[in-house]
This record gives sequence, C-alpha cells and structure tokens, in this order.
Amino acid sequence: MARRDVYLYQQIADKIAQDIDSGLYVSGDKLPSLRSLVRHFQVSLATAVQALTVLESQGRVEARPKSGYYVLPVIKTAPPAISRSSRSANKVSVGQLAQSLVEESRSKGLIRLGAAVPGTDLLPLGKLGRSLAGASRRHYLESGVYGDSQGHIDLRRAIARLMKTCDVSCKPGNIIVTNGCLEALTLSLRAITKPGDTVALESPTYFGVLQVMESLGLKALELATHPNEGIDLTALKYAVNHYPLKACVLMPSFSNPLGALMPNQNKRQVVHLLEKNQIPLIEDDVYGSLSHSGRRPPSAKSFEQHGGVIYCSSISKILAPGYRLGWIAAGRYHEKIAYQKFLGNISTSSIPQLALSEYLHSPGFRRQQQKNISVYRQRMEQLRHTVLRYFPSDTPMTEPQGGFILWVELPKEVDCMKLYVNAIQKGVAISPGVLFSAKPQYRHHIRLSCGVVQTDEMKRGIKILAKLISK
Amino acid sequence: MARRDVYLYQQIADKIAQDIDSGLYVSGDKLPSLRSLVRHFQVSLATAVQALTVLESQGRVEARPKSGYYVLPVIKTAPPAISRSSRSANKVSVGQLAQSLVEESRSKGLIRLGAAVPGTDLLPLGKLGRSLAGASRRHYLESGVYGDSQGHIDLRRAIARLMKTCDVSCKPGNIIVTNGCLEALTLSLRAITKPGDTVALESPTYFGVLQVMESLGLKALELATHPNEGIDLTALKYAVNHYPLKACVLMPSFSNPLGALMPNQNKRQVVHLLEKNQIPLIEDDVYGSLSHSGRRPPSAKSFEQHGGVIYCSSISKILAPGYRLGWIAAGRYHEKIAYQKFLGNISTSSIPQLALSEYLHSPGFRRQQQKNISVYRQRMEQLRHTVLRYFPSDTPMTEPQGGFILWVELPKEVDCMKLYVNAIQKGVAISPGVLFSAKPQYRHHIRLSCGVVQTDEMKRGIKILAKLISK
Repeated sequence: MARRDVYLYQQIADKIAQDIDSGLYVSGDKLPSLRSLVRHFQVSLATAVQALTVLESQGRVEARPKSGYYVLPVIKTAPPAISRSSRSANKVSVGQLAQSLVEESRSKGLIRLGAAVPGTDLLPLGKLGRSLAGASRRHYLESGVYGDSQGHIDLRRAIARLMKTCDVSCKPGNIIVTNGCLEALTLSLRAITKPGDTVALESPTYFGVLQVMESLGLKALELATHPNEGIDLTALKYAVNHYPLKACVLMPSFSNPLGALMPNQNKRQVVHLLEKNQIPLIEDDVYGSLSHSGRRPPSAKSFEQHGGVIYCSSISKILAPGYRLGWIAAGRYHEKIAYQKFLGNISTSSIPQLALSEYLHSPGFRRQQQKNISVYRQRMEQLRHTVLRYFPSDTPMTEPQGGFILWVELPKEVDCMKLYVNAIQKGVAISPGVLFSAKPQYRHHIRLSCGVVQTDEMKRGIKILAKLISK
Repeated sequence: MARRDVYLYQQIADKIAQDIDSGLYVSGDKLPSLRSLVRHFQVSLATAVQALTVLESQGRVEARPKSGYYVLPVIKTAPPAISRSSRSANKVSVGQLAQSLVEESRSKGLIRLGAAVPGTDLLPLGKLGRSLAGASRRHYLESGVYGDSQGHIDLRRAIARLMKTCDVSCKPGNIIVTNGCLEALTLSLRAITKPGDTVALESPTYFGVLQVMESLGLKALELATHPNEGIDLTALKYAVNHYPLKACVLMPSFSNPLGALMPNQNKRQVVHLLEKNQIPLIEDDVYGSLSHSGRRPPSAKSFEQHGGVIYCSSISKILAPGYRLGWIAAGRYHEKIAYQKFLGNISTSSIPQLALSEYLHSPGFRRQQQKNISVYRQRMEQLRHTVLRYFPSDTPMTEPQGGFILWVELPKEVDCMKLYVNAIQKGVAISPGVLFSAKPQYRHHIRLSCGVVQTDEMKRGIKILAKLISK
C-alpha cells in the first residue's frame, strides 16, 4: 500500500514535469488546482499534495499561500568547458585522500555530498539479506571448498543474462566474478600492462583508476573530454598515433565525475579505432543502468568486433556496495585476467554470489531498478537547482543524463582542497576536483553526489558550501 | 550422544597408541582382549571395537581371526634430505598448473590427494551457515555502504583475541581483514617490494607465493630448508649478508609442503636477524593451529621486537575455504598494506565478516578445533603408513607434527609431472613437486594431502599411485 503510493505520486510528478518541459505550462503559469489533479489522476488528495511537493523540492514549482502552485523559471547554466589533453603521459600520484572519502561515506554525522554511494533507502537491502539468509541455509556446503575462481556458475549465468540489457551477448564462461568493480579494473590493468606503460584516460577521471595505476607504476595520458559526450575522438586518434598506448580506460555511459554519455556513434568509432590498433579498451559501466530516461544505452562492448573490450561493472551503485560483487566480461583477454583473479584471492566468497544470483532472477530486481532511476532523476534535478540557486550565478556544471553525481566548476579563486577541509569542519562532505587527475588541475572544481542525501540536508549542505565559497 | 562416542573411541585409540609408542607393547605383542578393554576404560563393547578399528586403519595393529589384535612393526623411514640453497635469485615462472589443482579440489569424481583442502566433513559449515543466515537478517543494512577497508570492527576484535593463541598481543586496529590468506600474502608483497626485488623463501615452498611473485616480477632466493625444522639458519644468515633481500616469506609452523615446525629458538633467531637488518618477515600461519599435539606453537610474530613481522592467516584450513576470509597483523607495515587493500577491492564483504565474528565467539569453535586436530593426526598416521606399505621400500617422506600434508620423495626415475597426468587419468589427484620451486627441481617429489580423503579411498588412491610408480 505504502509502496504503491510512492509510485503513484512520483508518476504524477513526472507527468506534470513533462508538461512543463513540453511547454504546456511555462514560467509564471498557475498549475491546475489540487482538486482538479485529484479528479484528473483519480488519486487521493494526499497523493496529489505529495506530487506537488516533489516538484517543489526540485525547484520547478512554488506554492503561493492561498493561491496555488506556480511554475518557476527554468534556470539554464553552461556546462564546464571541454577539458584539454595532456602533452605528455604523467606518473600518477593522487595520494590517499580517496580513502577518507570512502570512510566519510560511512559516517553518520556528515551531510554526504562527497562519496559516490547510492541511497541506502533505495537499495533492496532487506530482500538481499533474505536471499543471503536463504542461500546460507540451503547452500552451506558450498563454502567447504574453494569456489570456482571465475565465479559461481549460477551467478555467471545471471550476469550473462543481465549483460543483454546493455546489448552484449555473452556466455557464462565469458564472465569473471570479482570483489567489486575496483577489483575488476585492477585485475584488468594488471593483466594487460607492465610498469612504465602508458594508459589513456578521460579527463577528469575516476580517481580509483588513478590510484590503481599509481600502484602499478603506469603513466596516465589524460585526454580532452566533453562534459556531455565524453572522450574527444580527435584527441583519442591523435593519442593512438603518437603515444605507445597499452590500454584505454573509459566510462562511456554516465562517466565519473562528468556524467557524460558518449553517443552510440562515438562508442562505435572508439571501439573500432582501438581494436584496429590492438589497444584493449577497459570499459567501466557501473552507472550504465542508471539512465534517467529509463532507456539503458548500449555499452561500448556491444560494438566490439574482435573481443577487444574488457567490460567491468558491479552491483555497488545499484544494489549493495557492501557485498563487494562485480564482474568482468573480458573478451579476448579472459584467460590472462582469470589468472590474475586466481593470484589475487583464488575466488570470490561463494554464498553471497548465490544470494545475488537468486535476487537477480526475482521480479523485484527490475521493479527496484525502475524506481531508483526516477528517484535519482529527481534528486539530480533538485541538486542542480539548489546549486544554481545558492552558488555564484552562472556557475558552470554538468547536466548528467544518468547516475547521481554532478561536476561543478567554482570561481577560479576557490581552492577545492581548502573548501573540502572547511566543509568537513562544518559537517559537509564533498569530493575535491584535484582527485580526478594525475596532473595538478581541477583545483577549483568539486564533485557532488546526490546518491545518498535527503532533500532537506541537501539544501542545508549546499547552503553551507555556498557560504564557504563566497568567503 | 553420537558425538560423545566419537570422542571416546578416539581417546581410547590414542591411549593405546601411546602405550605402543612408549614401548609398553612392541611389534608382535597381543593387545589386551576386547573384554578387558571394556572393563579398563568403562566403555561399551562397540566403542572398544571402534577404537581398535581406528588403530587397524592406521596400520598400527592387525586383527587375527579368533585370536585378537596384535601390534604391527613400526615402519621407520628417513625424512627427505635437507634442501640446498640457490646460488642465485631466480625469476619465477611456475605457470598455471596450480589453478587446475584448485579446480580438482572441487571435483567429485577424483580421489583428492592433491589440493591442500580441509575435510568438508570436519568443517562446521552448517553452524557457519546459520551464523551467516542470522547476520544476513540482523545486519542487512551493513551492506548498504562500503565496509571499513581494514575489516569490520567486530571481526577485527575477534581476530585480535584469536591471535593470543599464537602468543601475539595486538589490537583490533592492528588487523586488516582480507579475502583469504593468498590475498594477505599478495597485498603484503605488493606493499613492500618493487619489480626486480629479491625475496628469500623456504625450499620447497608454497606455490601460491611463487605465483604471486611471478606476477609482481620478483626474484626468488630459495634457501636450504630442513624437513623437520624449517629454514636453515646458516643459509638465511648467508643470504642476508650476501643478497639484497627485500623480504622473506616463511611458514614457520607446519609449512607447506614440508610440514616443518621451526623450534622456538630458531623462530626467535630468524626474527631477530631479519629485524636487525630491516628485512620484513612475511609469516604465513594458515596451518599453525593444526598442531597434532594439541599445543599450538607460538608464531614467529610473537618474537618480534620492532613490528617487523607481517603475520598472514585465514580460516580456509580450519573453518571454510569458500568464505574467502583471512587477515594480516602487519606491524610497522600496517599503513602501506591497508592502502593496498583499499586499492585492490576497497573492502571485504561485510555480512560474512559479521557471521565469522559471531562464530569465533561461540563455544562450538574451540570444540570443533580440538576435534579436527585429533582427526588430522590419525589421518596423517594412516597416510604415512599406507604410503610406506605400498610405495617402494625406504621411500623418504616427512613426518609432519601438524596440518594435513605430506611431502614424499620418489625414486629418481619417476617424473612427477608424468605421474600427475597418469594419476588424474586413473582418478587420483596429487600435487607434483615441481610446483614448489621456481627452479627446475623436485621432479621426483609429490605432495599428498589427507585433508579431505576418507580411509577407504585413501588406500585405493595410494595403491593406484604405487602401481604407476612401479611402472
């Protein structure tokens, strides 16, 4: 009953938002009265009020006392500029700051705008827990032996099926189960590179990859990246022709931190270019299923012709980060990566794999995914609106079409590390921009996450940041 | 009731075996009649028969029809010779054979004398499963966030307490939880070495370490090792003075594959020598608690004075390999290794950690450990006796005081790789000796495990091997 209502008011809010987007109502228009919404949508008064409250929290409408709800002007802002390619490959040294971000994500006292973690309230933790309890009782004998190094066959089957949603046809035998996506990336890089090798990356890029590259002694060649469309094709072509690239790591769908989505045409061209030059593409797709439109984009891997794409993903952003379960569909590099998995920790814990496999087969999984998408879309709208309202006017920021993270360019005078330190003292966590490059850049950028914050605290957090920035 | 009886007949068998060992009965002597055993031990006839059956299966007594039980001659055999140190550090390349050993350990068709896995019947899998089910229901929210990179505090507390059994005092903050002991060793080596570095090892040594070293580009300096007392002190001193050692990896208590136990005095001297020269000692203690005497030897770490020992262990040999849970007590290298853990897979799955923590606190844990020890002692006696009976006479083999693996030296004409391949075809799995060195040696050695085989199949397996050897 409670759950049905949640769907209902969200659906109604979505429909009204669509009407605004389509120009049916423009800035300053009065929305239909509550009573007419009740009649039109055949819902209770409470549900109609909830729907309008959602729109209000997103900054799309405002309530005027004793009059009704009015459409607010849509604030437009520029995206950050396209980044520039490095002239040379850099030795990586991003330090250990990232570790404190993850620790912060577990802290209860902070307003958590920093770590890219999903909303605990949106995860099916209770259901997963029951699957795990069931698997513990039914399959307890499985833990008496070392599990299959490449993953339990049941989970590999479920994952192979899941891969169809991003247009990849693969068999269970093509999957390697890992302890999360960072392990997937680590094993992939370890399998295909040697210390001193050069690897091409987006800029800015996920700091986890930078840290792994640092520990493997790899050099990072950061390439020009468009905030909406991802890596710049001309820059990549130039790099392929002029640098001894041994691999390329990209997040083609809803990248971290830009939230960029490469157009399909670009994905095809990138994969074709890299395959032609025998440079493996490591595709990190942890946000790929969180498309705000509800339509999951095809993965870069779906465009491969010679097994040149090493696809990495996990359930950390969509189901449960604490399970530490991810996977690799490694194409032609399968054997090498499987061996690295064996060397790293022999195999992944068996029973949680069985629990996940069961959950992925349940109808609840699909429903839960749909629900999350609409919540993240709303939260992202709200986050962008709140930042626009309180931060300096014309603050450039991204307009992500998926996921829950936002990249914000602050005035040049702001030092993001100082802001990070001061904000923590005021109880607000952010990710400083310097984390996202091996070079000293993005000093006045920050990454904000709306994965885990609730409406009220998001507003409070942004206000605190705005005050610190204005100093 | 059933369990009480198990204890009882084992205890009686142990007492009679002690009487034989002490010389009270010698070869050819008739043992007291069943009736007098019943009277003496105040047990049922069935229990007395079971006790004698155990001794018979160990090859210590034989039943003569209508007469009684007679003591068999104790067959003595020499241990294998002490190994020799390498003249130079070797690049490591043991290949991927080890992977097939682990796969074999999960196979049901084979007589599993190869992989060093514990007996599934001896593991408390049902109880652990119930702990995991309970933790899944009670702590499901824990999986909504990335867990503490160094491990859940509850488990770290339980492990810190467990470390007292090997005479180490440490705090929860000194522990890093890992996905098993191989991950512990990998993270440790990765944290303290660079490609090209030289690491000292026992010879023969655990192939997992060799594989990890291969992938890290490390050079192995294999040192003379005594089959009973472990690494040779003179050889180690020489190596410290003449090679640029960056680390030393040892299994001081019941090593793999020799089963050697370093005397306490040696442990103290090794730790002192290495600490003085600032060479970290990585101690692998996975078999340390499986002492056949029931008295757990102190770990090498218990002799450290400056935090120079990186202690690694896991529950894979004593509770459940499939849980993939191990730990490191890293001393002064804690920070570096914790960072490597974060880079590898952020953290270890949360709920299994909570389940293990609960089980370690239960009284059942201690009881189960005691029981395993006496079973492994019996199985080891049986294995040694069976090998002596069927293999060529005077076959040298180790006499392990703990654990469940045996190192056997075959006639020089036998090629262990050929034997391995032929034995698999006959349904028997063994570990070929060549796996246990980075150099081409131990070609006529094999490692046998009595962890998982039952009495009958052990005999069958050894007979099959003996036939192949005699060809």
